[in-house]
Amino acid sequence: MSQVTIIGNGHMARAIAVRMIHARHSVQILGRDGERTRELVEDLGAGATGGGEEAVIEGGIVILAVPYEEAVRVVLLYGETLAGKVVVDISNPVNLADFDSMRTPAGSSAAEQVALHASKGALVVKAFNTCFAATLEAGHVAGQPLDVFIAGDSQDAKLKVSAVVAASGLRPIDVGPLRRARELEAMMLMLMGLQVDPSHENFNWDTAIKLLP
Amino acid sequence: MSQVTIIGNGHMARAIAVRMIHARHSVQILGRDGERTRELVEDLGAGATGGGEEAVIEGGIVILAVPYEEAVRVVLLYGETLAGKVVVDISNPVNLADFDSMRTPAGSSAAEQVALHASKGALVVKAFNTCFAATLEAGHVAGQPLDVFIAGDSQDAKLKVSAVVAASGLRPIDVGPLRRARELEAMMLMLMGLQVDPSHENFNWDTAIKLLP
Repeated sequence: MSQVTIIGNGHMARAIAVRMIHARHSVQILGRDGERTRELVEDLGAGATGGGEEAVIEGGIVILAVPYEEAVRVVLLYGETLAGKVVVDISNPVNLADFDSMRTPAGSSAAEQVALHASKGALVVKAFNTCFAATLEAGHVAGQPLDVFIAGDSQDAKLKVSAVVAASGLRPIDVGPLRRARELEAMMLMLMGLQVDPSHENFNWDTAIKLLP
Repeated sequence: MSQVTIIGNGHMARAIAVRMIHARHSVQILGRDGERTRELVEDLGAGATGGGEEAVIEGGIVILAVPYEEAVRVVLLYGETLAGKVVVDISNPVNLADFDSMRTPAGSSAAEQVALHASKGALVVKAFNTCFAATLEAGHVAGQPLDVFIAGDSQDAKLKVSAVVAASGLRPIDVGPLRRARELEAMMLMLMGLQVDPSHENFNWDTAIKLLP
């Protein structure tokens, strides 16, 4: 049985899967595009299995490695099968047209919207949204482990995610309740805007934010 | 004539003044508490002068090293004398009772509120709010220059602040218009909450946030 199920087969799904397999967790990749999912599973090699959206979720931790609106669709789709599971929202609902506003309702966050639409028994956690795929896949930046900021209302769920993050060679930092996702997401409105600004020639999605020392 | 005027005489005023004097800028410290102001000016030594709130502002850059509500009071107090000057808001309007909410109106920021109450001709810039006093005074963290995120609607004003920041041995990062202060301040709601959480024993106001590499 897989310990972690990842919904999605894009850059973030790949980066997270690489870290998890590095930590000897088995990973189940579920995606809508069967070919992309198969390619990713083959690339990942031993420890990875794949399937379509209709497959049974095997992981106790389910990582929604998809955009915000997809994350909401996915928790509605899986409904009660998510009860008792840790559901990780990694999304950044930044308007990609202008990097100047959010796609979420004011005074909320993607993670809270996902929790609102998920089964009551799902333990929703925010994590990985402050990581970019390239540095996350590498696991370190400037010789130091990446910081993974984690927010959630279930202490038990956060401990489970923190354990997997730490085993993956990253540094988990518990930042408090799920509503702290508002600040974690706001941070990325600013940071993603920097990455796309041509005047910042050194910021090309290969950066990472670290709390030092 | 001082190039930089700092309003306030607390830890952040000291840290910023130390960096500026290190950069051979002359600094004028204006504070309400005459004794604290005199002590700070004496500690800073050559390059620093002091005065009360009634003194004439000498700097072309005016740094409001005071809490949010004080920053609003100060721009109202100085009124038209701030026209043409670069006014830097460094405040974090985090509710210090719970580190869970902001003291600013929803959908705004301390910097935007300061700009709203300042003379029309004042060029308001957000900077230094993501720095804690101890690491800012040192100027570096883990062997690397501190990042200073800068937001503002006047490109000229941001260039002036960036030049002083760079000369002070810090790394200026222009993050866009003044409304990006919302995200810079939100970030600190999260980060200040970490510093006061006893479970994070390594985060005791001596950290700094860096964009790596």
